[in-house]
Amino acid sequence: MKFPIGYTYAATYAGIRQQKRNDLALIVSTPPARAAAVFTRNMIQAAPVRLARKHLAASKGRVAAVLINAGNANCATRTGDRVALLSSRTMAKALGCRVENVLPCSTGVIGVELDPGLLTHSDAPLAAKLSPEAFEDVANAILTTDTRQKIAWEEVTCKGGPIQVVGMTKGSGMIQPNMATMLAFVMTDAVVKRADLNRMLTRGVERSFHSLTVDGDTSTNDTLLLLANGASNVKPRGKERDLLAEAVARVMERLAQQIAADGEGARKLIIVRTTGFRTKKEASRIGRAVANSPLVKTAIAGSDPNWGRILAAAGYSGAIFDPSDIDIALQQTSVCRKGLAADYDEATLKAKLDAAEVDIDIVHRRGGKGQARFFTCDLTEGYIQINGSYRT
Amino acid sequence: MKFPIGYTYAATYAGIRQQKRNDLALIVSTPPARAAAVFTRNMIQAAPVRLARKHLAASKGRVAAVLINAGNANCATRTGDRVALLSSRTMAKALGCRVENVLPCSTGVIGVELDPGLLTHSDAPLAAKLSPEAFEDVANAILTTDTRQKIAWEEVTCKGGPIQVVGMTKGSGMIQPNMATMLAFVMTDAVVKRADLNRMLTRGVERSFHSLTVDGDTSTNDTLLLLANGASNVKPRGKERDLLAEAVARVMERLAQQIAADGEGARKLIIVRTTGFRTKKEASRIGRAVANSPLVKTAIAGSDPNWGRILAAAGYSGAIFDPSDIDIALQQTSVCRKGLAADYDEATLKAKLDAAEVDIDIVHRRGGKGQARFFTCDLTEGYIQINGSYRT
Repeated sequence: MKFPIGYTYAATYAGIRQQKRNDLALIVSTPPARAAAVFTRNMIQAAPVRLARKHLAASKGRVAAVLINAGNANCATRTGDRVALLSSRTMAKALGCRVENVLPCSTGVIGVELDPGLLTHSDAPLAAKLSPEAFEDVANAILTTDTRQKIAWEEVTCKGGPIQVVGMTKGSGMIQPNMATMLAFVMTDAVVKRADLNRMLTRGVERSFHSLTVDGDTSTNDTLLLLANGASNVKPRGKERDLLAEAVARVMERLAQQIAADGEGARKLIIVRTTGFRTKKEASRIGRAVANSPLVKTAIAGSDPNWGRILAAAGYSGAIFDPSDIDIALQQTSVCRKGLAADYDEATLKAKLDAAEVDIDIVHRRGGKGQARFFTCDLTEGYIQINGSYRT
Repeated sequence: MKFPIGYTYAATYAGIRQQKRNDLALIVSTPPARAAAVFTRNMIQAAPVRLARKHLAASKGRVAAVLINAGNANCATRTGDRVALLSSRTMAKALGCRVENVLPCSTGVIGVELDPGLLTHSDAPLAAKLSPEAFEDVANAILTTDTRQKIAWEEVTCKGGPIQVVGMTKGSGMIQPNMATMLAFVMTDAVVKRADLNRMLTRGVERSFHSLTVDGDTSTNDTLLLLANGASNVKPRGKERDLLAEAVARVMERLAQQIAADGEGARKLIIVRTTGFRTKKEASRIGRAVANSPLVKTAIAGSDPNWGRILAAAGYSGAIFDPSDIDIALQQTSVCRKGLAADYDEATLKAKLDAAEVDIDIVHRRGGKGQARFFTCDLTEGYIQINGSYRT
């Protein structure tokens, strides 16, 4: 893994989590990066999300620093806006940049007041620790119920030289498309125009975070940032730009898959593919209904090839189709043909379903162009254990 | 509990379930009853659902017998239509009625062929067992993953004499509004016109099964029947008709609540009430999102007053509101006021949340007329255990 030029990282323990584990992290770009962002579509938006939007508008999408805390969502609190602003200001002062070039992000419990002193006291020491090598420190500090860090890397070779794209994310529960991740940061050192950056973000997010669902819950704090600081001095042109867009999409896709695979309590990554439907919309509806179905997800947890539940979920998805046009395969084994049971060996298939990655393919035999792909995970006792006592 | 006049019941073991437990049941009305029905809105409809629709149309809503099997949904099978028809025919012959006066219902696993012989061999012996006292035998025979029978009763006193309304239902998982239950049968001996019966059904189902969600999955076999055979010779008029409609709705409501309370793995019935919203639609959206949220349901399982998750679910429901207009109470204890944490004693509230019934009240302070109520249950390890190995 090679890091893009011009980014430095730092993480520290500010005392926000009860457990002594880094909970405050910083990503700095020198020079300030162009940024494209996607935020949660939840009506309830955390204070840092609202402030980050404002800062992006005021700075015309220029970001010098991303300041992230875990352990408290800073959402639905009396002092939320003030805390987010105070902390951004202290950090701007420590870094010598304008406050609108600092983007705040928070993740954790909702509705608990966040002591601004914890952030402001730690901002300057955090800035003093910045290092190009501390990428993984940040990737770890932003985790909450995640069991492991989630990072991805791609390199693009251009005429002008190599470009790096790296990404990190956190998220495990409260994950549902539109928007899907909790926090994700993707950084490149390419020179990219703002309009191109926005296009790359849109293309990437569609294939990744918007195709991800763990439990159908959409968080109040979801933030995806794509940063390009141009520090490599390499400006991809023509086909190179496509390669960069593809690399950005691949990084996002791998991050999204890692979230699904690390879904709360998950033991398996499930990839649901729908193909041959009339429209993209119908393919998506079916894919999402199947990926969100607790009955499908518990069946996969138990390695039970219960394709009837997959067909039933397709049936209530809202898409219109004739059941006799549907084929379903699990792990490339046909289990349902023309809407009826296919002939397969149950014991062999059960063994295949014990794998860490399970493919569900739903094919509409009429061969339309509508297709979609969703990432999710199995639903196990672990999800219940984690979420029955998250706060306490 | 008093039974309505003119209904007889029987249940037997036909060998459909592996476990030796009654799996075939019969309800007969003499004279044939007027019927109103609601069926699943799932695109995938089981063979008995399709045939029941046809029979109701052909008989103009006259039902002599309801024939129910558990253990096999008779859905997505090659021989489904033939099995449902054969079995209805044999039963019609045994009872001496027309085939279109027999309504078939099935519940159980999807996609497994159902041996028609199991049904046809049992039909005549089943008919021979009919008795007015075997109501609970039927209520038990139709259960699948349910842990207990679900029945309800109301009496309406009219000038002409008393009228009885009884109901039974089964359903535990794969439960989601529109349509909500799996199977429910409500019987009265009142004399009711067809149009009135339909109105009573619509009014009752809105308040009950359409306000019920266990896991967001809608089954392929859902059927709700309301039967009125007029055997009491009492024809409610004017206000009496309202009383009967109310009794029918109350029976359905109590059946729906019993389903939620017996949701797969559930330890608690959750009642979500939304009031004061602009429109009924907005109130319903929020209520449904909260009732369907795995994060809310696991929090309640853990007696965790995590109101932030309730607010977040309201936020992604699609309803438009200002968070500062929202109050939330758990067990009548205010936990969120104007979108912010209220002052409450956590230990006391946690103890209250250990109850078998948990109330979640979401109040929009602007005082609009839109309100809704949903029944659901907590989400526990039990749900996973039941559904990870249902077929095997």
